Amino acid sequence: MTQPYVRLDKDNAAVLLVDHQAGLLSLVRDMNPDSFRNNVLALADLARYFDLPTVLTTSFETGPNGPLMSELKEILPDAPYIARPGQINAWDNEEFLQAVKATGKQQLIIAGIVTEVCVAFPALSALEAGYEVFIVTDASGTFNEYTRDSAWQRMTAAGAQLMTWFGVACELHRDWRNDIEGLGTLFANHIPDYRNLMNSYASLQAMKQR
Amino acid sequence: MTQPYVRLDKDNAAVLLVDHQAGLLSLVRDMNPDSFRNNVLALADLARYFDLPTVLTTSFETGPNGPLMSELKEILPDAPYIARPGQINAWDNEEFLQAVKATGKQQLIIAGIVTEVCVAFPALSALEAGYEVFIVTDASGTFNEYTRDSAWQRMTAAGAQLMTWFGVACELHRDWRNDIEGLGTLFANHIPDYRNLMNSYASLQAMKQR
Amino acid sequence: MTQPYVRLDKDNAAVLLVDHQAGLLSLVRDMNPDSFRNNVLALADLARYFDLPTVLTTSFETGPNGPLMSELKEILPDAPYIARPGQINAWDNEEFLQAVKATGKQQLIIAGIVTEVCVAFPALSALEAGYEVFIVTDASGTFNEYTRDSAWQRMTAAGAQLMTWFGVACELHRDWRNDIEGLGTLFANHIPDYRNLMNSYASLQAMKQR
Amino acid sequence: MTQPYVRLDKDNAAVLLVDHQAGLLSLVRDMNPDSFRNNVLALADLARYFDLPTVLTTSFETGPNGPLMSELKEILPDAPYIARPGQINAWDNEEFLQAVKATGKQQLIIAGIVTEVCVAFPALSALEAGYEVFIVTDASGTFNEYTRDSAWQRMTAAGAQLMTWFGVACELHRDWRNDIEGLGTLFANHIPDYRNLMNSYASLQAMKQR
Amino acid sequence: MTQPYVRLDKDNAAVLLVDHQAGLLSLVRDMNPDSFRNNVLALADLARYFDLPTVLTTSFETGPNGPLMSELKEILPDAPYIARPGQINAWDNEEFLQAVKATGKQQLIIAGIVTEVCVAFPALSALEAGYEVFIVTDASGTFNEYTRDSAWQRMTAAGAQLMTWFGVACELHRDWRNDIEGLGTLFANHIPDYRNLMNSYASLQAMKQR
Amino acid sequence: MTQPYVRLDKDNAAVLLVDHQAGLLSLVRDMNPDSFRNNVLALADLARYFDLPTVLTTSFETGPNGPLMSELKEILPDAPYIARPGQINAWDNEEFLQAVKATGKQQLIIAGIVTEVCVAFPALSALEAGYEVFIVTDASGTFNEYTRDSAWQRMTAAGAQLMTWFGVACELHRDWRNDIEGLGTLFANHIPDYRNLMNSYASLQAMKQR
Amino acid sequence: MTQPYVRLDKDNAAVLLVDHQAGLLSLVRDMNPDSFRNNVLALADLARYFDLPTVLTTSFETGPNGPLMSELKEILPDAPYIARPGQINAWDNEEFLQAVKATGKQQLIIAGIVTEVCVAFPALSALEAGYEVFIVTDASGTFNEYTRDSAWQRMTAAGAQLMTWFGVACELHRDWRNDIEGLGTLFANHIPDYRNLMNSYASLQAMKQR
Amino acid sequence: MTQPYVRLDKDNAAVLLVDHQAGLLSLVRDMNPDSFRNNVLALADLARYFDLPTVLTTSFETGPNGPLMSELKEILPDAPYIARPGQINAWDNEEFLQAVKATGKQQLIIAGIVTEVCVAFPALSALEAGYEVFIVTDASGTFNEYTRDSAWQRMTAAGAQLMTWFGVACELHRDWRNDIEGLGTLFANHIPDYRNLMNSYASLQAMKQR
Repeated sequence: MTQPYVRLDKDNAAVLLVDHQAGLLSLVRDMNPDSFRNNVLALADLARYFDLPTVLTTSFETGPNGPLMSELKEILPDAPYIARPGQINAWDNEEFLQAVKATGKQQLIIAGIVTEVCVAFPALSALEAGYEVFIVTDASGTFNEYTRDSAWQRMTAAGAQLMTWFGVACELHRDWRNDIEGLGTLFANHIPDYRNLMNSYASLQAMKQR
Repeated sequence: MTQPYVRLDKDNAAVLLVDHQAGLLSLVRDMNPDSFRNNVLALADLARYFDLPTVLTTSFETGPNGPLMSELKEILPDAPYIARPGQINAWDNEEFLQAVKATGKQQLIIAGIVTEVCVAFPALSALEAGYEVFIVTDASGTFNEYTRDSAWQRMTAAGAQLMTWFGVACELHRDWRNDIEGLGTLFANHIPDYRNLMNSYASLQAMKQR
Repeated sequence: MTQPYVRLDKDNAAVLLVDHQAGLLSLVRDMNPDSFRNNVLALADLARYFDLPTVLTTSFETGPNGPLMSELKEILPDAPYIARPGQINAWDNEEFLQAVKATGKQQLIIAGIVTEVCVAFPALSALEAGYEVFIVTDASGTFNEYTRDSAWQRMTAAGAQLMTWFGVACELHRDWRNDIEGLGTLFANHIPDYRNLMNSYASLQAMKQR
Repeated sequence: MTQPYVRLDKDNAAVLLVDHQAGLLSLVRDMNPDSFRNNVLALADLARYFDLPTVLTTSFETGPNGPLMSELKEILPDAPYIARPGQINAWDNEEFLQAVKATGKQQLIIAGIVTEVCVAFPALSALEAGYEVFIVTDASGTFNEYTRDSAWQRMTAAGAQLMTWFGVACELHRDWRNDIEGLGTLFANHIPDYRNLMNSYASLQAMKQR
Repeated sequence: MTQPYVRLDKDNAAVLLVDHQAGLLSLVRDMNPDSFRNNVLALADLARYFDLPTVLTTSFETGPNGPLMSELKEILPDAPYIARPGQINAWDNEEFLQAVKATGKQQLIIAGIVTEVCVAFPALSALEAGYEVFIVTDASGTFNEYTRDSAWQRMTAAGAQLMTWFGVACELHRDWRNDIEGLGTLFANHIPDYRNLMNSYASLQAMKQR
Repeated sequence: MTQPYVRLDKDNAAVLLVDHQAGLLSLVRDMNPDSFRNNVLALADLARYFDLPTVLTTSFETGPNGPLMSELKEILPDAPYIARPGQINAWDNEEFLQAVKATGKQQLIIAGIVTEVCVAFPALSALEAGYEVFIVTDASGTFNEYTRDSAWQRMTAAGAQLMTWFGVACELHRDWRNDIEGLGTLFANHIPDYRNLMNSYASLQAMKQR
Repeated sequence: MTQPYVRLDKDNAAVLLVDHQAGLLSLVRDMNPDSFRNNVLALADLARYFDLPTVLTTSFETGPNGPLMSELKEILPDAPYIARPGQINAWDNEEFLQAVKATGKQQLIIAGIVTEVCVAFPALSALEAGYEVFIVTDASGTFNEYTRDSAWQRMTAAGAQLMTWFGVACELHRDWRNDIEGLGTLFANHIPDYRNLMNSYASLQAMKQR
Repeated sequence: MTQPYVRLDKDNAAVLLVDHQAGLLSLVRDMNPDSFRNNVLALADLARYFDLPTVLTTSFETGPNGPLMSELKEILPDAPYIARPGQINAWDNEEFLQAVKATGKQQLIIAGIVTEVCVAFPALSALEAGYEVFIVTDASGTFNEYTRDSAWQRMTAAGAQLMTWFGVACELHRDWRNDIEGLGTLFANHIPDYRNLMNSYASLQAMKQR
């Protein structure tokens, strides 16, 4: 008895970014920091590009955990932002829960730091509450690979779907013709190899014009 | 409640090769390029050897994604070839869907670039449509290992079976006596260690004759 | 059909530490010894901090397997301690089983050496007996990574939830406001990166006071 | 809905060793050759030690695949040995199937080369036929790690339990008191770290006697 | 007889960026593409920040190798740019050699694609010509790790000093007081962990002001 | 022409700990944080145990780099401590240089964060000044492995000897009989595997007494 | 005192291929077999392309070591081929030595199986005899990475230059204009990423023509 | 100025096995235990096979370090065996030094636990005393890979040659014809892949006879 295909739908999806804070970023060691930062920003750009309702939340921003990554506020200036006073599972925070409900969406795209806590706890709670849950694994980080693997198995067993930001973008977009340039720009900005392909192509096209 | 054994049957299987394009190949970094190219060609040779109906498809071949690997057209000159105008999930392309249906097969052997999109999306759609789906993991590539692992977990949870080209060949062939030389040649051409075994053996046999 | 969210509850959880013995520690090679020792002690400190009933057990302490890690007895001086005369699966030992029942808890947090035997066997037995089982993967060790991966798959398939000590602490604590300093100290003592965050923060706060 | 705990029972278990042949051994690259050889011999010693009915089988022993590892015949001289004339899935060979049935056991402990074919195919067939199947992952080898991972996921999804030879031995033995010396010798012969523990202990005991 | 300490001197150093072209970037597989792109841009920013004379060169820009990374031209608009008509070793190109001489510097900081050719060849030639040579290893890339290691050993044996862009910046700057903000900005733009430290610090300082 | 054996001499050696600061620790990613912290503390304990003159130094302690690891001040309360106002190479700071000279030693044991800057720069300067230099590689950390490897090759080429804290301790101590318990305690406190050996041994000895 | 730049010269270089035999290939585990086979054939193609005198040699071809890779004889049909009757170091074989001298070259490009014996021994002997020696590290293979690393350090210390086949080809060719198509074909045949670049380029050029 | 080729000569070589003790073996984590044990025994067998004078030594055999690996005494019953009372560097022990001198050899083949102490210290002392030193890297073990790498660089810089047991055997034997069967047996007993080659060959030869 396998899981049915629940496909991301840009009209029914919201993004939850949980605890991407400057201090907590120093805990992330299951991915190199260049790639992790890039993936988190790609996910934020994606949320803006598809105009998905997005909820930002942090824990103890004035303490050691540090402030939210400043780029997230810049990219998503209108996103509701909930500074939790103490709840570790964001889902336990009433204000956060209302913000999620206010999006009116059934599909939740979740990422955060650290994977097995800030991502897994609300993901499991959301599944229990009947939401469809998609984890953006490459915009979520934690202490090491075995912690990540444990968290992935726990979330998968509970019915969460594991994706990466690129897959999320592709499943939301569905057809390049909806906006070739927009999607291409999103990719070029966050995938060096894709940027190279586009630059080589553009360069040759330019020569062709001459 | 586990999955029943759905066994590949050469009279009921088709191969779908999705977006093995020169540009996209530069995105594949979860396998070294020598092995990846070898695996993709092995799968194409396998399709030809077992005379399996095969569908080729690409996205944006005239743009940065680049042309289909030329070897695939050479190995499978008669395979229907669908250049999709924009659909990211090949299953969303009516022409591709008709080509799949035209094979008349219930078992779909799928590989492509990149794993979590070009492979996973049609695989999940095909499962939803009632097909039996086999992923050729080593002829499918993507950005990095955590993306691959996420995609594998998503597809497994949905009921896809993960295989590699060698396993596919063996499950289709069933008995060496059906054609020892043909299968041996397929293996020797794509598995250096097997080629060595065969050469050492042949060399000793030759000495024995003398 | 996925697993429901069974959430750790500090009023309903007990800890089982199985065979963390000096000799057996030399068998653990799927984690570096600095991290493994740290994780085991963190789990013991966590048990004490949350005042969870804890059961210690060893096999053949007077033989090659060696004595229980002395720190565990120091941290948990009142925990029942069962030296099994021969049963490999601790659950087969009546005294151990009684100690587990005596905790009166339904949620069992299990760690031990080696993962696929001393952890997996009682975990599978406890699941069969109707307990909710949580494996502390990073306080459990074994010979190598493929052994670990095999054991994880077996336990996950049987319904055990894979966690790490940090996730366990967070799920038990639920809200930082229950005791900020206590939880912070637990983390600082066992997570160097977190200690650094706290020290930098305290240092700046101190300057601020001046 | 998770899998129930099916526990190995030495009175109800048989061992199937599939295609551990000298030539095929050169294909195994997901484990270093010293460890792999050691694990295969440990499994054979285990089968002898617990007096489990064992079936040996090979494919094309007189061709490039090469002869069965000679140590297996030496350790298990009375095991039925089926040289298959061509069937890739040993379960398709009537003689092999009869040998399995002749053991009269319901639990099958399977290992072989290569994992995704010679192990996975009979494992899946045996599960379909209603047997309880245990894969000895560390006595099974294949081309590389992604092939292994694919095969493990396929077998797990079908209900096979993944174990290693050490776990199998422990689950069969159940209680050290059944034979301390016998089990200790099995471990010392195949686990250098355990041998060291035993030697250090024996050395200190000897000094103690003096 | 060891090498004397030749220390980078910002008044005596020039930067040579060799063949950082869009097509060739797809060959680089000894580093992940996010980090590699970041390192190359960091080196270019460094050259601009310290106002070091810089020479850009490419091979076959209108062919498969593709155009120079466009960011390099943007960051260093005034750098002489030599499109070599065919010489593989840039040092064999008279125009390039003149550009190097025109810098009037004795210390050459070299990076490029691929390490063992486009970097190593001019580096060895420059050493032979009496220059002091510093390789920026993390802004140089190649096919795989063993190729890189071979190239590093060859260059080290010839007297080149291996550094990374961060070390180069620090050795050139010598004293933070020369310009704290400038150097801090360079680091924050290219080292996510350093950016986090700065953001956490600034955030706490801001609170302090209040 | 190889290097002569320059052997550490406890009467002629001093220790330099450079920039082990809470903020900079978050940059260290070529070693896991549990091991790195342990190694740094082991080196400090070693310095105290052998009563080696030790110099502590930091850069910008009141800024983002954060305060010195507090444990270092606790272990080495009498060590001169130089907070450099801006010099990146500690050797460029006159106060530091005087502190080094004041030790009156010719052998300098150096560790710090980050390896290629805070360690390599003073190491190269000290070599140039005629000192014998020993790098404690495992108490020095940096961004990633290729940066570390580059730094090691540069320092080795200049005549520095690469060691780890355990080797340093052994070369200084020379003969266990100088103080078995003291050295044993140092090792037990920082090498879990050695602690296990000692505990197993002590446990057996205790039984022997009875 | 560093090594002077000895640059490969196609008029003064010969290639020695030592013991690339079918049986010995199964010993090579420091590289994946797809890449290793590709590298060896690339080196042979390179030797033919540059028309370098080449010497082939094997040990015990009629025994377990197996026959020379058949492709080498096909690519280099006119190369002298010395089947050594027993000398492990090919340089100890008078016939081989004469074949080397007969090439009349001073630069020897050496590759073989296994690196630390069949490559290192003749390389060290050739250096002693005054030849300039270049090791093709990626066309040489051995048991594991630490064996390789040991061998590389021994050969580097003795003055051998470590290169890979691509670097050798580039250093010999010097200028693309000597034969763009020939060199491009060599690369396309053995570097999948380069082939992709060329195919994408050619495809765009073709469109441009239209 | 490179090192001249110093070639092992079986009439001028002795073997020093330093501190291969049961307890210390648990510290070795830069190699898997199956391979490490195999390599140490291979070196001992090699010493016996070539009848090389061999010196065994241990430190604190009656303490936590544990007894010498019992197999070494069995393989080399006549080797002088020096239990050092406390000297960490075996070379500091007069009895050991006399045993080395008594061999009358100038070439010392050294292995031990741990690499950076028990191997490096006597190696450096022996080089200083004018001996030619060969390190058997794969029969020497230590805590982790960075410790090993540091030790290798220190020993290489001092003029030691890094080899593995297989290379040592080949360089000592020089010509298979000196004793094909003896050397073949040594290899078959310690290299599974070689054993496979020999078994396949023998099996085919046997068939040929018939």
